[in-house]
This record gives sequence, structure tokens and C-alpha cells, in this order.
Amino acid sequence: MSQTYQRIALIGLGLIASSIFWSMKRAGHTSHVTGYARSSATRDTARRTGLCDEVFDTAQEAVRDADLVILCVPVGVMGAVAALIAPALKPGATVSDVGSVKRAVIDAVAPCLPDNVHFVPAHPLAGTEHSGPESGFAGLFDNRWCLLVPEVGTDAGAVAKLDHFWQSLGAKVEQMDPDHHDLVLAVTSHAPHLIAYTMVGVADDLSRVTDSEVINYSAAGFRDFTRIAASDPTMWRDVFLTNKDATLEILGRFTEELFALQRAIRTGDGDQLHAYFTRTREIRRGIVEAGQDTDAPDFGRGG
Amino acid sequence: MSQTYQRIALIGLGLIASSIFWSMKRAGHTSHVTGYARSSATRDTARRTGLCDEVFDTAQEAVRDADLVILCVPVGVMGAVAALIAPALKPGATVSDVGSVKRAVIDAVAPCLPDNVHFVPAHPLAGTEHSGPESGFAGLFDNRWCLLVPEVGTDAGAVAKLDHFWQSLGAKVEQMDPDHHDLVLAVTSHAPHLIAYTMVGVADDLSRVTDSEVINYSAAGFRDFTRIAASDPTMWRDVFLTNKDATLEILGRFTEELFALQRAIRTGDGDQLHAYFTRTREIRRGIVEAGQDTDAPDFGRGG
Repeated sequence: MSQTYQRIALIGLGLIASSIFWSMKRAGHTSHVTGYARSSATRDTARRTGLCDEVFDTAQEAVRDADLVILCVPVGVMGAVAALIAPALKPGATVSDVGSVKRAVIDAVAPCLPDNVHFVPAHPLAGTEHSGPESGFAGLFDNRWCLLVPEVGTDAGAVAKLDHFWQSLGAKVEQMDPDHHDLVLAVTSHAPHLIAYTMVGVADDLSRVTDSEVINYSAAGFRDFTRIAASDPTMWRDVFLTNKDATLEILGRFTEELFALQRAIRTGDGDQLHAYFTRTREIRRGIVEAGQDTDAPDFGRGG
Repeated sequence: MSQTYQRIALIGLGLIASSIFWSMKRAGHTSHVTGYARSSATRDTARRTGLCDEVFDTAQEAVRDADLVILCVPVGVMGAVAALIAPALKPGATVSDVGSVKRAVIDAVAPCLPDNVHFVPAHPLAGTEHSGPESGFAGLFDNRWCLLVPEVGTDAGAVAKLDHFWQSLGAKVEQMDPDHHDLVLAVTSHAPHLIAYTMVGVADDLSRVTDSEVINYSAAGFRDFTRIAASDPTMWRDVFLTNKDATLEILGRFTEELFALQRAIRTGDGDQLHAYFTRTREIRRGIVEAGQDTDAPDFGRGG
């Protein structure tokens, strides 16, 4: 691979970092990959499982001489981590991240970095509900989007090289404005996650009344909610705190519409319900046609 | 199979009825299966695809001489269909259904039936987001629950025979009180479906602003919502109208909790969010341990 980085540092060794590493191996990258995690248990696991060519006990050591540094830590600590590694960065290096929120990360990270490095924030739209250094796998990014959100004036060569890197891991790459990114993600991901967390919390309250029935008979829409709501608590806490405005705006629209449907149920307005459900069916068709999901039946749905 | 029915009538030929038929074939049932659907297009499709041994143009003809009649129509028309077939039912026959709501079905169907038939309402907790006579398949009910909700005093032999029938299709069978069924399903299925419909509706409104981005970048929790919200509009309209009280009660609790989390986001209370998300993660573990879902990672999740 002509365009690859010679030395890559992964800071934070969870689901995304480990999936980057195994996807690089699958793609035949020959880069030397260094890693760092704050927890010594995570570093031990990484060493034991061969995650990274070299695992360091400090972030500064891990980033030394790296051509690409990817911050794979929760959004809330991106700024602190950037400040920590800044003095050790190699001139000309590219610093990127994988955070689910982009404006807050840019505001926190950019001021910490020296002028002689390129900052190209990124967000791979991929993941599972599992977390930790052993949850990653080659293939996580296959046919998934990776959104790059460089600020105007960022070195075009650095952006193109990172674009190429993500494509080599299987991703489709697109550029987007950071604020627009945060709004789109509030709709497609952040608000749905909060809603799923909430519904599972309600069921959890009720399950104390009805024993394990909620769990036993969870074959239905609810199971998908529990899967979503099993995602990493720290990551999601930070997402909501750092994409506050867009998330609250979408949730405001959501409760407005939910109240309208609740009223339709209360008043027995079947026509309104039917028309609404017919309309939402169409957006699913759009997603299947856009190739973002398959039309294969998913089990366990139904009344 | 010693305990099987000689002649079975399926009234309504959608996802559930067709899955019953193909699951019977897989299990080696030798029963003669008759079918009826209101739409002539559906009847034609059934005849063309070999769905049912015999498809009739009227429900009365289909149920004549049947030992088991299963109503596989939307909950809202169960009563009307029961009234229609009542005069043609064979004495000693068992009438059952597959509706997602049980109290309303019992109240609508039971008064229509003659005293000399057994009424054993049922609800298989299985389905996909697809509908229609070609959407069914053997295996839909494998390891899924089928809840039987006979009223007190129902003939024990008729209940046991239906229990045996559903087990032969792959299901696990349990009995439950109808009102309790409706509350449990409001939590695990009905409220989550309404919430998913609502969130997809909100996104649909916004997608007019942001073009196809909501569809393109839907790799996230949102995709699961669109899948849920693609379910049959008529079926779900009827579910909400007939399980009104339980659904509205759960939605009331849901909005209460959602407002509390929204406030935590607005005030930046990260500890509250983290504690909540940690708690909801546990219920997922319970579901995986209860064997109701696998722990295999699901793709496309993430920020």
C-alpha cells in the first residue's frame, strides 16, 4: 500500500480501536501500530491478545514518531488526552479521532494541538453493543460510512490520506460539516439511543412487579431496544452531554409527535394512526433501497 | 402425530398464517389445511404458491368440518369474522386466534361463538416486519413463546391439544391471564412499537430538510427503529386501539422518565445519565441469559 502510514498510534483500546487494528491486519497494512489505554487491565489484555504491535504504559510514548494518531476515547476526555499527547507529537503527523460528536471534539482538541500537525476529525458510523479491547473484529467497518469533518483550510493531502486509510478498512468515506454532522447524528443515532435507554428503564421498573416476564417475553420490538440500550454507558453519557442542543431539539420534536399519537389512541382515531404508520413504512423502504440494510426478515418481531 | 387435528382452517392468510402452514409441513403434519382470505388477490397468491391444501372464497366454507380454526386477521376485525363463521363451525371444534391483544379479542369473539365449540385464544410472540401471504416461513416460531390465554373453565383437553400443536411448530407454550398478557405486551412490544413509529416519523419530517442524509447515514440505533416501524399498519392500528389503556399507561411512564433524562442532559448531570445507562445494560444481560436473544454482535450500532 503506497499511501499508508508507517507508524500509527491508537489511543484508547476499545471496540473501535481494536476493530481498526484487526481490519488493518486483514487489509495487509504493514504499518507499525502502537497502542495505549488508561487502564492497566486493558493494556494487559491488549498485550495478551496481540492487539497492537506494541502497547505502551503512557500515551506520550505511544504517539512518539507516529504518522497517524487516532483518539479512540470517550468524547468527554478527547480534550484532556489531546493536551497530554500534544508535546510528544511528531511534526507533520495527522491527528484524528472516532468520536460520535464532532463540534465538541473539535472545540476541545484543536486548541491543544501544535500548528505543525494536521487535525482531521472523523466518525466511523459503525459499532456493536459490546465494548472493550476484545470486542473488535475485522469487518466492523465494511460498507459503513466514515464521515470526515476537517475544518476549512485543512491540508488536502492529509485529508486524502486518511480517506484512503478508512477505505482500506472497508468503509465508504464522505466529508461533512461538523455542526451538520451533529444534527444528522442526533436524528439517526443519539435521540434513538436515549429513547431506547428510557424504554428499557421503564420496563426495568415494571419487571420488579412482574418478575422476569418482561425478560422472558421480550420477543418483540423491545428486544432491539435492549440491544441498543446495552451500549457503553460512558460513551453515551458523553455523547448526550456534548451534543446537548441537537439532541434536545430532536427529543422535543419527538415528544410533540408522540403526544399527537397518544391523543389519537385515546380518542380512537384509527385513520390518523394508519396514515402515520403507512408513512413510516416508506422510510424503511428508502433505507433498504439505499443499501444501508437488507430486506431479510428479522426474527422476533410481532405483536 | 397422534394428537394432531385432522382438519385445520386458517382464516386470514398473512405472515402468521403462512408461517403456521409451512411450519406444519416441516413438522410432518398430515392435517388437511383449508384457508380463506378476504382479498381475492391474496387467495390467488395462496393458490399459486401452494399455501393451504384448499383455498375457499368464503370463510364459512373454509371452516366447515374443521377441528381447529385459527383466526389470523387483524385484532379489530376478529369479532366480525367470528360472527361470520359461527354458524358454520363444527360442534366440538376449537377456535383460536393469533392476535397481539387478548382482552379485546376475547370480549369481541367469545359472545359470537356457539356453546359447543372450545375457544382458546393464543398469541405467538413472533413475527417479522414483512406481511402478506408470501412472507411466511417454517421456523418463524422456533424457540419463540406462544401464550395461551383460555378463560377459566375452558376444556382442559382442548387447551392441551392446542399447546401440543404449537410445540410441534417449534414454539414454547405458556398460559397467561388475558389482562396480564395485555400489560406485559404493552411494555415489551406495543409501547416500543409506537415509540419507533414516532421516531421514524420525526426523522421523516427532517429528511425533507436534509435530503437523503437520514437514510444514507442511518447506520445506528435508528435502523432498528425503521425496521420496527415497517410493520403492518393495519395490524398495529388495531393493537393500539384495542390495548389502549395499558399502552397509554406505559407511554405515560415512558414520557415521565424521558423528561427526567432530558433534564439531566440539559443540566449536564452526567452521573445520573451514567447510572441510568448502567442499569439498563443489566436488563440486556438478563435477556441474553434467558436465551431470548444471542450475544452475537449486531452490526451498524454506534454513535
